[in-house]
Amino acid sequence: MTDPNRQALGERLKPLVRDIPDFPQAGIMFRDITTLLADGTAFRQAVDGMAEGFTGIDKVVIIESRGFILGTPIAYALGAGVVPVRKPGRLPAPTYAEAYSLEYRNDELEIHQDAILPGEQVLIVDDLLATGGTVAATIRLVERLEGKVAGVSVLAELSDLRGRDRVPGYRVHSLIVY
Amino acid sequence: MTDPNRQALGERLKPLVRDIPDFPQAGIMFRDITTLLADGTAFRQAVDGMAEGFTGIDKVVIIESRGFILGTPIAYALGAGVVPVRKPGRLPAPTYAEAYSLEYRNDELEIHQDAILPGEQVLIVDDLLATGGTVAATIRLVERLEGKVAGVSVLAELSDLRGRDRVPGYRVHSLIVY
Repeated sequence: MTDPNRQALGERLKPLVRDIPDFPQAGIMFRDITTLLADGTAFRQAVDGMAEGFTGIDKVVIIESRGFILGTPIAYALGAGVVPVRKPGRLPAPTYAEAYSLEYRNDELEIHQDAILPGEQVLIVDDLLATGGTVAATIRLVERLEGKVAGVSVLAELSDLRGRDRVPGYRVHSLIVY
Repeated sequence: MTDPNRQALGERLKPLVRDIPDFPQAGIMFRDITTLLADGTAFRQAVDGMAEGFTGIDKVVIIESRGFILGTPIAYALGAGVVPVRKPGRLPAPTYAEAYSLEYRNDELEIHQDAILPGEQVLIVDDLLATGGTVAATIRLVERLEGKVAGVSVLAELSDLRGRDRVPGYRVHSLIVY
């Protein structure tokens, strides 16, 4: 898919996202993707659009929890395995951790130490690219396991927050741009 | 897929699940499915096996958070929409809530009030059927929205805990049985 085609798909899907002001706190405009997900046709188009252009992927890394929703059908479509990156204490085997700061809080993300083999091609998926802190921390986790980051694919990007600038040199695809 | 075929697939996939004793607390044998998910071929077989036999599904209800991982590729494969059932406070629009007791804690689950239309055919997906409390609460949420529960599909079932008995009269498919 060319960039203009991806943008055109994003513009068609955008009206299906519901805007909810002041969630989870005052001053935040929450982009609620559940209304898009509930539409089977739109959901499939979003998944296909987000997977498009990434080939030879061994593992799709999915970021808890809304990244889980879009990442696993992309892995299914690409024939790749799935690797969850989770909040602290939820992965049961030995992990590595990375700290990050999000738009409205601080947290840590963990990955299983044996989740990715050196040299594997990895696609990182999340629902939203905001400040880029979550994605940057996930890239650090993947590279600590010597995985190769083939790209980052998100459903929606809040372009004002310039998250893309936090991960220079990486291929970042977003369908819907705000 | 016949029941014996489903069981045979489950037996092939079972060795890919990693057993972790005393997680998240002493006395619990945690069935870690991340090792299965990381194998692209096994992941795809699991998704196809869990979707098999369910047709005419309008919405797949996915239970936070590990249900998110398996539920969305099943929805993608079936051409259905996705409806997340989440822990309290995470869904941004008006919700209904149901309480449940899990194997090792109590909690509540929420669904958006507009997530399912009356009469829609609904498949409920989770990773694990343990005591059945989570699935029973999710069935109550779906029926409160007047959705029709076509069935429940889980990757693994802890048969000793008799979760199946908590949801009599519903079609419950599990791939891997412990």
